[in-house]
Amino acid sequence: MTGKIDWYSEFVDLDYTPAKDDLICLYYFEPARGISAAEAAGRIASESSAGTWTTLTKLPERVAKIKARAFELNGRYVKVAYPIDLWEPGNAPQLLSGIAGNIFGMKALKNLRLLDASLPAKYIKSFKGPHHGIRGLRSLLKIEKRPLTGAVPKPKIGFSAAEHAEVAYETWMGGFDLVKDDENLTSTSFNRFEDRVERMAKLRDRAEKETGEEKDALLNITGETNEMVRKAGLLHDSGFRFAMIDVVTCGTASVQTLRQVCGDLGIAIHAHRAMHAAFDRNPRHGISMYFLAKLMRLVGVDEIHSGTAVGKLVSTREEVTQIADVLRSSEVEVKTMLPQDWGTIKPALPVSSGGLHPGLIPSVMDILGSDCTLLVSGGIHGHPAGTRAGARAVIQAIEASMDGTDLKEYAREHEELSQALDKWGYLRPK
Amino acid sequence: MTGKIDWYSEFVDLDYTPAKDDLICLYYFEPARGISAAEAAGRIASESSAGTWTTLTKLPERVAKIKARAFELNGRYVKVAYPIDLWEPGNAPQLLSGIAGNIFGMKALKNLRLLDASLPAKYIKSFKGPHHGIRGLRSLLKIEKRPLTGAVPKPKIGFSAAEHAEVAYETWMGGFDLVKDDENLTSTSFNRFEDRVERMAKLRDRAEKETGEEKDALLNITGETNEMVRKAGLLHDSGFRFAMIDVVTCGTASVQTLRQVCGDLGIAIHAHRAMHAAFDRNPRHGISMYFLAKLMRLVGVDEIHSGTAVGKLVSTREEVTQIADVLRSSEVEVKTMLPQDWGTIKPALPVSSGGLHPGLIPSVMDILGSDCTLLVSGGIHGHPAGTRAGARAVIQAIEASMDGTDLKEYAREHEELSQALDKWGYLRPK
Repeated sequence: MTGKIDWYSEFVDLDYTPAKDDLICLYYFEPARGISAAEAAGRIASESSAGTWTTLTKLPERVAKIKARAFELNGRYVKVAYPIDLWEPGNAPQLLSGIAGNIFGMKALKNLRLLDASLPAKYIKSFKGPHHGIRGLRSLLKIEKRPLTGAVPKPKIGFSAAEHAEVAYETWMGGFDLVKDDENLTSTSFNRFEDRVERMAKLRDRAEKETGEEKDALLNITGETNEMVRKAGLLHDSGFRFAMIDVVTCGTASVQTLRQVCGDLGIAIHAHRAMHAAFDRNPRHGISMYFLAKLMRLVGVDEIHSGTAVGKLVSTREEVTQIADVLRSSEVEVKTMLPQDWGTIKPALPVSSGGLHPGLIPSVMDILGSDCTLLVSGGIHGHPAGTRAGARAVIQAIEASMDGTDLKEYAREHEELSQALDKWGYLRPK
Repeated sequence: MTGKIDWYSEFVDLDYTPAKDDLICLYYFEPARGISAAEAAGRIASESSAGTWTTLTKLPERVAKIKARAFELNGRYVKVAYPIDLWEPGNAPQLLSGIAGNIFGMKALKNLRLLDASLPAKYIKSFKGPHHGIRGLRSLLKIEKRPLTGAVPKPKIGFSAAEHAEVAYETWMGGFDLVKDDENLTSTSFNRFEDRVERMAKLRDRAEKETGEEKDALLNITGETNEMVRKAGLLHDSGFRFAMIDVVTCGTASVQTLRQVCGDLGIAIHAHRAMHAAFDRNPRHGISMYFLAKLMRLVGVDEIHSGTAVGKLVSTREEVTQIADVLRSSEVEVKTMLPQDWGTIKPALPVSSGGLHPGLIPSVMDILGSDCTLLVSGGIHGHPAGTRAGARAVIQAIEASMDGTDLKEYAREHEELSQALDKWGYLRPK
């Protein structure tokens, strides 16, 4: 007797009704050859909670209480319930190590994807969520209804700090709110973080004075944790109220730390998601962007890149609206995902970026509405009349979209928009 | 004129000879329909360094100096050279954000895999590497030649702290060096970290006294960064000289922080890799385990799970030996990967785990040699005569392997080994 089947079947209970405090995961899975769906489901529940691969001589009674249970099998989809006692309050890396850990490497599965996790109220409470949330971000920048706007000086790496700040100034003067570093620009020999902060602060003050508008920047503090803490302090001392972090490459442990530090300083966290597509692109394996967005709202970023559906990076309209929904809503009921009650956790703002230009703005706003941040970079700096005119063209495209006016029509009386459409074209919303 | 092809071709230079200080990446890629291999290669180099998607009106001259160049195209493989000025010294998350960031999500590619990166000496110097290294670990535990041994109390979560420590004691008394927490056990209501540390320390001291051997534990400090720092301090105060971190779910930013803190305390870092298979399992996309192992040695873990080739988790013999090589050697020349000179960075120890039992030990040691840590958990606790006998059976299997004696023969005079082989069988090394 190997006991194999018996052991895994301990983790399948199709009659089980999840408790109010259970954490529920939804997985897509493909069993390896010779493995039944039920055995695969049991192995997922087992390896992600209290299981091992062989019969044991001694099993503590508590295992029956805290083990995960595959309780709903539907073709290649399985729902697994995890008792809340498995989880340490406020420990995001531990959650991932359980529900998104060893199970991806099991021989018993050909593919496995964590689609979503529904987090119980009691667990949610142990996390901070966004410090500012959407209303807080709008209040920082004094913007009531329209999307926030931002741009990365392009090329994304190569400018000196002085050149970088000059492009920033043009961006702000064109009407944009935010100037953003890109994911791979931190502190280099030719553009030191400290220099960039100093020069940007000076020109931000000038742009604010000249426009009467709030201006800010998303400077990239990505690095070792204590170095990020130091850089966040530097940003605060220079009057910035935002910081940017590459949240996937830094990892959840440090993002939780920075949420604490930035919250104390009143600094909002802009989350760049570089590296997400290493594990979310294959629809049959890995972790969904939907869940990553949820996790980051839980941990407490104020805004996060969530896909564009148009532009240079992959994503579909359905994915993007679902992700925006889980970031912005207080209660979520998505057909293909799990319900989520966010309790007192504030909403986060979806950020749209990647190959945007004025002609795409109506489509993006049709998908995301106006509660979002629009990052348009190449699509302003590549404008025939330069960065400032490019930023104006984007603002004009936003005005037209908020107004319900067709872009072509609006362009007749707006020179910058007209030039942009001539260069990049116009994608009419579907 | 869209200028698209021209822009990307700026990042391809098949005549380019990499500079001594260039960082070189090896990617596997599959272009999307309608994209040539050359354009795909250019886009990889562009998006991971200084590119954007459109023509720009203003390009700083510096871009020509710091841009990445695809310099060797070989079917679906491309080598890209990155000037060292792109990289901030000692910033591991930034490196990932560049060479393993946005590029995975580009529409222009169907699949992309970062296989390896060859890191220049000047860059390597800005990282700490392992504090102890292999010799340091051996000296901590006073073990000259044989593999280190460790076990997780199983089931991996469910024991109280007292029960957990009891299993630990049996494990140590059976001859094992290390008792390990599993990836999802941090601090729970029924097994608080502080309780576990206290009870384990007491029984560790007893086991050391009774056996005259060095005993230690890999307690899991995974969590928010400052909480990890606090827990590392607690371990140190209780006489432990190891800490375990789930390095992928925590992320590189916090691992770098803990490397500093643990190094100051003389604590070795045991790296669990839970979640790695979310991005390394598909051979055509994501990031290779080979590179992850290299990155973790660079950042400074002392040992890391690197696959087993036999057991419950996927990996091949070739992968496992390559990974062991990049962890242990001072200079690496692997046929399918890039050369690497480690300079003064100490070697790290590969850890083999996942479904091991005594009958697999000769095969694992045939693959990995004796410079490794062998984690055998279910394969000792599931022993018919219990944990202590199970640990003895593993030690006997190691003795036989070190001796070159066949396991079946050795089992004739070793009761515990004999019982283990009866239960789990014996896989003769190939």
